Amino acid sequence: MKPNDINFWSEVSEEIMVEAHEAVKPLVGKKEAGKVVKMGADGTPTKLIDIVAEDKVVEVLKSTGRPVTLISEEIGELKIGEGRSEAVFVVDPLDGTRNALKNIPAYGISIAILDGNSAHATDLKLTDIEMGFVKNFANNDVYHAIKGGGAWLNKEKISPSKRVDVAGSSIGAYIYRADMSKIDKLCSTVRSMRILGSVAIELCYVANGTYDAFLDIRGNMRVMDIAAAKLIIEESHGLVTDEKCEPLINDLNVLERTSIVASCNKNFHTQIISILGGI
Amino acid sequence: MKPNDINFWSEVSEEIMVEAHEAVKPLVGKKEAGKVVKMGADGTPTKLIDIVAEDKVVEVLKSTGRPVTLISEEIGELKIGEGRSEAVFVVDPLDGTRNALKNIPAYGISIAILDGNSAHATDLKLTDIEMGFVKNFANNDVYHAIKGGGAWLNKEKISPSKRVDVAGSSIGAYIYRADMSKIDKLCSTVRSMRILGSVAIELCYVANGTYDAFLDIRGNMRVMDIAAAKLIIEESHGLVTDEKCEPLINDLNVLERTSIVASCNKNFHTQIISILGGI
Repeated sequence: MKPNDINFWSEVSEEIMVEAHEAVKPLVGKKEAGKVVKMGADGTPTKLIDIVAEDKVVEVLKSTGRPVTLISEEIGELKIGEGRSEAVFVVDPLDGTRNALKNIPAYGISIAILDGNSAHATDLKLTDIEMGFVKNFANNDVYHAIKGGGAWLNKEKISPSKRVDVAGSSIGAYIYRADMSKIDKLCSTVRSMRILGSVAIELCYVANGTYDAFLDIRGNMRVMDIAAAKLIIEESHGLVTDEKCEPLINDLNVLERTSIVASCNKNFHTQIISILGGI
Repeated sequence: MKPNDINFWSEVSEEIMVEAHEAVKPLVGKKEAGKVVKMGADGTPTKLIDIVAEDKVVEVLKSTGRPVTLISEEIGELKIGEGRSEAVFVVDPLDGTRNALKNIPAYGISIAILDGNSAHATDLKLTDIEMGFVKNFANNDVYHAIKGGGAWLNKEKISPSKRVDVAGSSIGAYIYRADMSKIDKLCSTVRSMRILGSVAIELCYVANGTYDAFLDIRGNMRVMDIAAAKLIIEESHGLVTDEKCEPLINDLNVLERTSIVASCNKNFHTQIISILGGI
């Protein structure tokens, strides 16, 4: 993507993050925010707070006056403007919906962007992402990355931890309703574990060393929800694979799901995958 | 405790919460905040951010001009002022220290208060708590309870969820480094699980229905850290026991530890304890 385009779409993303946050704010912790308003394109129920956030994303993208494609959980795929899309936005307008409904302070937005010139709507891949933004609405932290250009938290360059010992590690791990035979050893080995309920934010925690690793091996993770954070981790020089240590090359659509293991470095990653029985 | 005293110590607690929060703010997410400055009275290392918070608690209590006793993690037991203490403050000045150090937005203060007239410093019990306050510094939520008077979140009366099915439940559960034979069934049964890393806040989540239950069965939970939240849950009409369904009647001192299971109602509590193999 050209520098001018990177700047333009970065500004658009900033505006989306601010506007979606403002739209969501009055609904956080409110009962009516959880009302199911329709079925989303991914086949799961869409709640009022999700649609309010997504509507704002659409509104900001329309206001740019440029042709873009939006792929989002509730709406599916939406072409905005005339002519070939200059960019494809893959957005989770509200990651951590359950937290937002209950005012648990970990929820936000995930925005991944592909170049419209190289992207073909029929075979968009996770590996084609060129820019990624994740904002935690609960504390205003913004993580972002540009392909080949590095990763930042609130405009400061970030890098993962240098952890090598799993016994001393802090990880995020979605272990409930998982195959416990794979999980037990991990649970008894790590120093501390968190489950905050916002995958996009927790993946970014690997990029800046808050977590040493993050994993969800249930095979049920929406590829769209991890699109931005995957680039952010990789640009910070962390690692992202599936539970078998295979690269994530999934299609970018609302139905695609995967397992995920993200780590601070290769040595640590290999140990985690081995403990999980993946290699 | 007399209404005048309740009002007075409530105002003191409000001031402690505001002042401790202000003192901690500049250190959140900062590396120097995690510097070990001494060993605490409970035998664990005291970090700079802990001592900054505790110092502020001492300062506010001294400013009241009334004799009080402070029991706190780092300082142990401290008599402030002359004469018999009018109140005993059992405080965790910073619950969720690791989160504060890493800017994970779930950390705060826990304040439990006993009547000095009935309290005897040698045999203070968890059951003697008359007032409890827990503040989440990350989003300014304040939970509080007065014995026999109910429980509130930000001055609105709260009550636990009416959940009866474990399969549909959201719980907080510290399961890493636990006995996994007790935990596996629970992990495969609940709908969602969180580990935020601030026990005081997460216990309060049971009081207002954010969680249906919270548990830590590792037997390593500091009694002082749960002192305020236990009253808040009980005053909201939720339940708190150990993992065998026995009441918590522990001594209030910096060394005392326990397991804990807190639930929204008796029916749900019995099911959780049974799944854990406690009854």
